[in-house]
Amino acid sequence: MSKTKNSKLRIIPLGGLEQIGMNITAFEYEDSIIVVDCGLAFPTDDMLGIDLVIPDVSYLIEHEEKVKGLFITHGHEDHIGAIPYVLKQINMPIYATKLTMGIIEHKLQEHNLSSQVRRKVVKYGQSINLGPFRVEFVKTNHSIQDAAAFAIYTPAGVVFHTGDFKVDYTPVFGDAIDLQRIAEIGKKGVLAVMCDSTNAERSGFTQSERTVGRQFDNIFAENTSTRIIIATFASNVDRVQQIINSAYKFGRKVVVEGRSMVNIISTASELGYLNIPENTLISIDELKNYPDEKTVLITTGSQGESMAALSRMANGMHRKVSIKPNDTIIFSSHPIPGNEKAVSNIMNELYRKGANVIFQDVHVSGHACAEEIKLIYTLLHPKYCIPVHGEYKHLKAQEAIVKELGYTSDDIFIVSSGDVLELDNESAKVVSHVHTGAIMVDGLGVGDVGNIVLRDRQHLAEDGIIIVVMTLQAGTGLVLAGPDIVSRGFVYVRGSEDLMDSARAVLNDTMEDLMSEGVTDWGKIKSEVKSSLSDFVWKETQRRPMIMPILMEV
Amino acid sequence: MSKTKNSKLRIIPLGGLEQIGMNITAFEYEDSIIVVDCGLAFPTDDMLGIDLVIPDVSYLIEHEEKVKGLFITHGHEDHIGAIPYVLKQINMPIYATKLTMGIIEHKLQEHNLSSQVRRKVVKYGQSINLGPFRVEFVKTNHSIQDAAAFAIYTPAGVVFHTGDFKVDYTPVFGDAIDLQRIAEIGKKGVLAVMCDSTNAERSGFTQSERTVGRQFDNIFAENTSTRIIIATFASNVDRVQQIINSAYKFGRKVVVEGRSMVNIISTASELGYLNIPENTLISIDELKNYPDEKTVLITTGSQGESMAALSRMANGMHRKVSIKPNDTIIFSSHPIPGNEKAVSNIMNELYRKGANVIFQDVHVSGHACAEEIKLIYTLLHPKYCIPVHGEYKHLKAQEAIVKELGYTSDDIFIVSSGDVLELDNESAKVVSHVHTGAIMVDGLGVGDVGNIVLRDRQHLAEDGIIIVVMTLQAGTGLVLAGPDIVSRGFVYVRGSEDLMDSARAVLNDTMEDLMSEGVTDWGKIKSEVKSSLSDFVWKETQRRPMIMPILMEV
Repeated sequence: MSKTKNSKLRIIPLGGLEQIGMNITAFEYEDSIIVVDCGLAFPTDDMLGIDLVIPDVSYLIEHEEKVKGLFITHGHEDHIGAIPYVLKQINMPIYATKLTMGIIEHKLQEHNLSSQVRRKVVKYGQSINLGPFRVEFVKTNHSIQDAAAFAIYTPAGVVFHTGDFKVDYTPVFGDAIDLQRIAEIGKKGVLAVMCDSTNAERSGFTQSERTVGRQFDNIFAENTSTRIIIATFASNVDRVQQIINSAYKFGRKVVVEGRSMVNIISTASELGYLNIPENTLISIDELKNYPDEKTVLITTGSQGESMAALSRMANGMHRKVSIKPNDTIIFSSHPIPGNEKAVSNIMNELYRKGANVIFQDVHVSGHACAEEIKLIYTLLHPKYCIPVHGEYKHLKAQEAIVKELGYTSDDIFIVSSGDVLELDNESAKVVSHVHTGAIMVDGLGVGDVGNIVLRDRQHLAEDGIIIVVMTLQAGTGLVLAGPDIVSRGFVYVRGSEDLMDSARAVLNDTMEDLMSEGVTDWGKIKSEVKSSLSDFVWKETQRRPMIMPILMEV
Repeated sequence: MSKTKNSKLRIIPLGGLEQIGMNITAFEYEDSIIVVDCGLAFPTDDMLGIDLVIPDVSYLIEHEEKVKGLFITHGHEDHIGAIPYVLKQINMPIYATKLTMGIIEHKLQEHNLSSQVRRKVVKYGQSINLGPFRVEFVKTNHSIQDAAAFAIYTPAGVVFHTGDFKVDYTPVFGDAIDLQRIAEIGKKGVLAVMCDSTNAERSGFTQSERTVGRQFDNIFAENTSTRIIIATFASNVDRVQQIINSAYKFGRKVVVEGRSMVNIISTASELGYLNIPENTLISIDELKNYPDEKTVLITTGSQGESMAALSRMANGMHRKVSIKPNDTIIFSSHPIPGNEKAVSNIMNELYRKGANVIFQDVHVSGHACAEEIKLIYTLLHPKYCIPVHGEYKHLKAQEAIVKELGYTSDDIFIVSSGDVLELDNESAKVVSHVHTGAIMVDGLGVGDVGNIVLRDRQHLAEDGIIIVVMTLQAGTGLVLAGPDIVSRGFVYVRGSEDLMDSARAVLNDTMEDLMSEGVTDWGKIKSEVKSSLSDFVWKETQRRPMIMPILMEV
């Protein structure tokens, strides 16, 4: 492609706009592509048995020669979780801040990719030049440390991508979001802003992380005679830091429990993001050497995940910790939409064990509310606004906010995954659409479970399966054995013998009719068996189990 | 049993305390039992394929000769939904207010029970005498009209059961809760109060239903040029009344859509609980004769139920209404815990269709908050407090509230389903436990799906099924046909031919080994087939499908 000064920038979200998570966006200018983020999504309720979902990156693979590098905003799963899967398909160097890279390295090791993937740790203020792109890392605040926004300089103009962010004037670790630099970038002229919409429905400002620390101090001061157990997000290192601070202040030892929590804390403290006073951390086996009122447990499971440590404690299935009456248990988190019921179930279980459960005013969000979004747009004053990160209703809420700032519908682009948004200082327009998709990962299988398999799982889940087997004589089609019926997930067979006997009778009748008519075509036999049994079962039970006739020949 | 003046009252919750819904409580005094409410519960996420859950009333059946009657507080499913199922097992006369009885009659008709069940409509202030019991119906407010609390007079003292309630000083229809009568009852001395805990975690007062009407007026005034669609709970007749009022005021015709909505509205308006101005209601087929800005649709589906009218409209599957850009759509409801994600999905879909979605400040709860609970306890001043209706955490929240009022742990009883709480003016104590349980209803089957079937459905849902069939020769045990493999919900077979071929090879090896060892025992053959295939599949895929060997003999 010939280089002309008039080329446009193409922004192509490859995921993240049809669902929460799976954030990945390609920026294409002439013969170069850079990618921002590479996240996974968690399966929705109808994805039975699926472990996680990753983006289909066919577009990148088709244009492999153009792809220059992967820039990561921060270390949350919805921004980094697909890296090992995607890098196995298309290798590219990764650029990220120190803590983010530490977490990524852990993932690469698990997938034996460490030696194959080039990585570069980038500092705030530093820029990376790749082809026509220059990407500047700008300090932001979020519910994980070392989050970055990207100022992406291209010949067509500057795009500012906020990543997930909030404005925290008094962060627990490090500096506040670099509003001065953001203003400076804005002053020079910005083509487009891609801005986090997660909290756009909420008015006002998100509270500082530090307010949670003050609340911990209050709770520790009020509960000096009981054990304290705090569940929070493993990756919220600042939250963990504040728990450690309160524990130290009140003379308590700290135990960290839950695999992901232990991993992140060890990475964060190795890299210097966590300051743990000597003799504060003890192992879970040492817990028994200290009186309850001298200990704090920090644990995973704040979302009610059934296999996480808190859940196992609540259900009496944890090998080392069981909930005692009077334990003070803090949920330092909000339920992510969809998890409300699971969280509520665990709280009930904890109450039943006699624990005191605290869940109000012990969490702040990591995402910008309406006033922070206005601040960022006002400082950057872009030509175009592109709401990202959030469900569709959140994107629409950001649209409403920037309209208050004077932007019109012509300036605002709510794009879908696969849309190719072509833009420069003259105009912006969705010009085409590329293939994208969600690939389901189940165990070791990547993409081998598709809609047909899922539909079968849903059918099986709903009403179970009835299997009809019989052996026919080769040539004659005579029934030598069967039809036998076996069912699973349909009815409790021992309590439904009459039903199963009648079903067998129906099948015998069907087979007799078919034999007397001289039918030997297996397809015909199967479909008759299926429909007669299905009618019978619906009439008797109003259920529609999967019915599977299996014929054998000897 | 000999009658002595010293007999105690026994309160036995037969459901409703381990989960939301399924409210049913027995009150037993000597040789008499009365029952309050008879509700269903909706299935939890792990009850795959289950339609609804009803209480196990073995205790009532065992003491059938004692059971005198069923008193219903109000017409919500969690208080009346199990009536047809339970009355088929144990017939008893039903006592309820007019609207409540109207809704119950609809259910009895559906189950062909109308002629067999005695029913008596009771007015507020009226009492029913049954054996040693006198039950007085006391006016309350709730999100359905005609809700009653019960003052249950017994020789052992008076128990006041609030049912679901709130305090609404300015209700849309009828009177405010009868606080004067409640005070009078309290003044005479109350043994125990059983009080709604649903909103006990919330401070302050629940707003009046009338505030929603004012909000409707505002929204109608601001949206004069678009169609308005309002989703709400079918049973909230006052809400529907207020929508009709606003529609009439702003000159719009009203269409009612969704089966349960149509049912309740026709019952309520027949019985005089709904005042619809002439020429206001039109049928859905007449909709096309009016301009959009002259119409309002009231619809079911505010909880994101996939088969409800709103959901079908949002997904373009409704035969008569499709969402248009600029439709104003109001969710006059809050998501019930567990439904948040489904509601959110529908909102996103509506936004995508270009609709304007309003969901803030257009709903009030039907349950009492902390200050209302304090008011009731203060007016009644009982000896014992029994928090009911709510998850365990809500019961604990009510406990905390009454402790503020000066009650101690000795006065408060958080009971479980099946607990027998024996009480009189001297003492109260859980003295024993009776059998209770949740019976799952799936289609026509009541109780034929139990834990084994559910576990199978979960297993099938997670990883699918692999069926291995073979035909053996009678006597010799020689393999005449197979082993053949069929799978459903495991992998997409056409994309996994290598895997399935290898699995077949594994099975052939296993069978060869067994044959060469002369194994003919079917149990042994099945278990070997299962374990070799299971090991292979786990190694290759890290999945654990259900594996089902089926042997036939000719």
